[in-house]
Amino acid sequence: MVGVDFGTLSGRAVVVRVADGAELGSAVHEYAHGVIERTLPDSDVRLGPDWALQSPQDWIDVLRVAVPQAVAASGVSPEQVIGIGTDFTACTVLPATADGTPLCFETPSRPHAWPKLWKHHAAQPHADRINQVAARRGEAWLPRYGGKISSEWEFAKALQVLEEDPEVYARAERWIEAADWIVWQLCGVESRNICTAGYKGIFQDGSYPPRDYLAELNPDFVDFPGKLATGQVGDTFGGVRLAPLGGSAGTLSATAAAWTGLPEGITVAVGNVDAHVTAAAADAVRPGQMVAIMGTSTCHIMPSDQLAEVPGMCGVVRDGIVPGLWGYEAGQSAVGDIFAWFVDTFVPASYHEQAGEMGMHAYLTSLAAEQPVGRHGLIALDWFGGNRSVLVDHNLSGVIVGQTLATKPEDVYRALVESTAYGARMIVETFEKSGVPVEEFVVAGGLLKNPFLMQVYADVLRRPLSVIGSEQGPALGSAIHAAVAAGAYADIEQAAAVMGRRTEAAYVPDPARADAYDRLYAEYRALHDHFGDGRLLHRLRAIRNEA
Amino acid sequence: MVGVDFGTLSGRAVVVRVADGAELGSAVHEYAHGVIERTLPDSDVRLGPDWALQSPQDWIDVLRVAVPQAVAASGVSPEQVIGIGTDFTACTVLPATADGTPLCFETPSRPHAWPKLWKHHAAQPHADRINQVAARRGEAWLPRYGGKISSEWEFAKALQVLEEDPEVYARAERWIEAADWIVWQLCGVESRNICTAGYKGIFQDGSYPPRDYLAELNPDFVDFPGKLATGQVGDTFGGVRLAPLGGSAGTLSATAAAWTGLPEGITVAVGNVDAHVTAAAADAVRPGQMVAIMGTSTCHIMPSDQLAEVPGMCGVVRDGIVPGLWGYEAGQSAVGDIFAWFVDTFVPASYHEQAGEMGMHAYLTSLAAEQPVGRHGLIALDWFGGNRSVLVDHNLSGVIVGQTLATKPEDVYRALVESTAYGARMIVETFEKSGVPVEEFVVAGGLLKNPFLMQVYADVLRRPLSVIGSEQGPALGSAIHAAVAAGAYADIEQAAAVMGRRTEAAYVPDPARADAYDRLYAEYRALHDHFGDGRLLHRLRAIRNEA
Repeated sequence: MVGVDFGTLSGRAVVVRVADGAELGSAVHEYAHGVIERTLPDSDVRLGPDWALQSPQDWIDVLRVAVPQAVAASGVSPEQVIGIGTDFTACTVLPATADGTPLCFETPSRPHAWPKLWKHHAAQPHADRINQVAARRGEAWLPRYGGKISSEWEFAKALQVLEEDPEVYARAERWIEAADWIVWQLCGVESRNICTAGYKGIFQDGSYPPRDYLAELNPDFVDFPGKLATGQVGDTFGGVRLAPLGGSAGTLSATAAAWTGLPEGITVAVGNVDAHVTAAAADAVRPGQMVAIMGTSTCHIMPSDQLAEVPGMCGVVRDGIVPGLWGYEAGQSAVGDIFAWFVDTFVPASYHEQAGEMGMHAYLTSLAAEQPVGRHGLIALDWFGGNRSVLVDHNLSGVIVGQTLATKPEDVYRALVESTAYGARMIVETFEKSGVPVEEFVVAGGLLKNPFLMQVYADVLRRPLSVIGSEQGPALGSAIHAAVAAGAYADIEQAAAVMGRRTEAAYVPDPARADAYDRLYAEYRALHDHFGDGRLLHRLRAIRNEA
Repeated sequence: MVGVDFGTLSGRAVVVRVADGAELGSAVHEYAHGVIERTLPDSDVRLGPDWALQSPQDWIDVLRVAVPQAVAASGVSPEQVIGIGTDFTACTVLPATADGTPLCFETPSRPHAWPKLWKHHAAQPHADRINQVAARRGEAWLPRYGGKISSEWEFAKALQVLEEDPEVYARAERWIEAADWIVWQLCGVESRNICTAGYKGIFQDGSYPPRDYLAELNPDFVDFPGKLATGQVGDTFGGVRLAPLGGSAGTLSATAAAWTGLPEGITVAVGNVDAHVTAAAADAVRPGQMVAIMGTSTCHIMPSDQLAEVPGMCGVVRDGIVPGLWGYEAGQSAVGDIFAWFVDTFVPASYHEQAGEMGMHAYLTSLAAEQPVGRHGLIALDWFGGNRSVLVDHNLSGVIVGQTLATKPEDVYRALVESTAYGARMIVETFEKSGVPVEEFVVAGGLLKNPFLMQVYADVLRRPLSVIGSEQGPALGSAIHAAVAAGAYADIEQAAAVMGRRTEAAYVPDPARADAYDRLYAEYRALHDHFGDGRLLHRLRAIRNEA
């Protein structure tokens, strides 16, 4: 079984044994174009601020390079591979023709013809209107998204195209998640997975937002869902067909077989999202298992049998993680990014000399770890990249309180680590207060490599942390979905139980530290409440933007 | 005329021409013991946290070394010198015998026998009791100090001695400001100047605090004012004799003539404080001329013909700057110290490479100066060293609001500069709201060397800044006072008009920037009000201290 994880800067292929989830070989391919932020490739066409694009050719190259390399590294004969599954960043979305050709292949000099990467943030004005109009009309789907549609998602990005380049918008017969587009390239059949349709495409209770709502946004936006819907694969919801997670989207085409070196005709799994497949890789797809994928940002994924309106969640989608359950998503817009920013920007030369080869994060961690809880006298609000949950406000900014002339870099570093843990606790508590129990907190992602940080999270959350057993969670998760799609297991739960893995209670809270953190968390909440209304921070942002 | 300025780390002597204030020669002598903070000299007796002592021998050495050097450098014959004036840090205070011998000369192994430097902060619990008891009793003098007696001042430091080393307290027949002790060494006669008696010694309306109040603090503290009073020189206030500023304390003794190389019998001026004499050096001793001495911290000095209770001022003292006027003092506990802390602690190596020989302050200033007002999106509360005025709370701490992942060191540096300007505006506005007009803002001190910082202050304050015309303000000011004491001028105002100097409107506000700062200052005020009650910051401090 092959799983392929399409990330922000590279794609990773892993060959996984169906019988036990053993990872037999893997390979990574860096995108030649990376993130396109300043000018279009082979062009001097400049992009605006907050733009972020990608090249579909880079994704195809992952299939052509990383997949054969992973198979070769595994020592497995390609003929033994019975299926391929993929996951993608989301919402990464592109305009295409009816046959799936990306518009940027036709008109490469037009910025809006290119795929918009998840972190393209130039559609905020469009998202603002989407939210204002929906709130005024009391659209029933709005609470399913914590009350806010993100500028990162399908409707905001498409509305930006419509209003800034109507020709591209008109030419785009399809507006498709990269997660689904790559599957289309693999099997030659268009499908739309239920996960991105729900979380990024405002598909709720069997339909997209109504025409009269869309008309209020822009009369030419009325038929937008026609670019999203497909009648070819999957269940029918109000006339729209969506493909279930763990389902089969089709079989590997001759073209894709040539790219990958895999046998034509093997199963191609329905597309999915990197964070969501990771839950299966951690064998954490039962109600109340919250999986936090902690890296530059953190994404929280949790199945539940309860439907509730959780303030500030990113979304709740029926069947959105595993069929038969409600799937919740929440997030922290910057986590590892905050630590990286601090280390890059605010650590003096003397520290670099001391750190030597251990690296600055490890060195600051070693200094910070020596301190008793609260010794630095600091509280920070972790909004340096805005707040995704529970406030859903990208115009918030960071706050650091309590510095004195004796404050040192390791003090601030520790306070920043703690601030993200407080942010996580705020999310967990918001779910529980809303009637959605969080039974287990499971960690995946790159920050797992910092045991001190993990212990802070355990202490702040006052609960044991489970940790994923794989360093290649998304690719493993994709392979698990492919195994289900190929019929090797009856469903995702069963496949995850065999092929996924995690260590329960890998970190347990220390009662004394947890008590101390309770006091600090109360101060964090006080700051959160004070600055969370955004009045002061929005005024500062407005002054900044005018300056 | 010779002026001698006793600072925190060194003493400076300047020879000044009486006719026009020209500075003819100067010399600096570094204190051999500097600030004694860890162990006593030639001893392994350790000091507690927040202790700061000095050695009287270091001060004598300034007279022995710096004064002759300055005279030699001036080319003036010692016989032409007709007087000597001095100024000192305050409240720097020591226990002595009835003949003026410092107790640390007798029992050098006892910490409390040594002079306590102004920044000795270990008497905070005693200051807290002084304030609590005074507030409960409604002591009439308390509002003269903005409602709070500082832990730095005479009563708090003496109460600490009494309660921690009663033998030293009992042996201390005199408890004397270094400002007065050095004059005693020069002329052999004890005097007490009206300035330190008022600002640091709680001498108001002709008397010290009453016996029954002192008894409530500690029954053995009842007779403490007996260690302060003197009947030998000056005006009588309710039985206590105080020496007026610009007055003569006596004539140079044979011993001191031998130290200094100056003629025996010349006039020795009454002692004074470094900040207060600077007003004369800037020729700013008329009502409404606020002199800000801006260095590691900022001290604000202003004569006025109005008596008012200004919230959070350090003190108002009749004749405290010049005879016949009320003298006001306020302050910011950390200013240059904040910038130094940031540069030392939070600036990365790449900036040091870029800065090269221009130095980090100049480099960060050059980057910060390019920004339009508000472009960094930041507001800081300048409480990294606590707040002296207007909140009078050393347990407050700094706050930085608005940082994002794009925030750079020069952004924070500029925000810190601005925060101190907002703090200055808060002080000016508090005076004016209290009915004490501020007619002119005059800057002296080391931060004058940063024109960008000065312009920020002009823009934030919305008023022209005058700047002192001497780089040796305190020593010049002392010489001016000596000229008055020697009878060369009728009073300080006349001497200052001839010998002192300043440039009016050296910096003028830019209306557009001032408008932009008005908006930011409103946000500073909002933060000031929110955090100024200290609840959150005090809880953080308490958690820190317990940790």
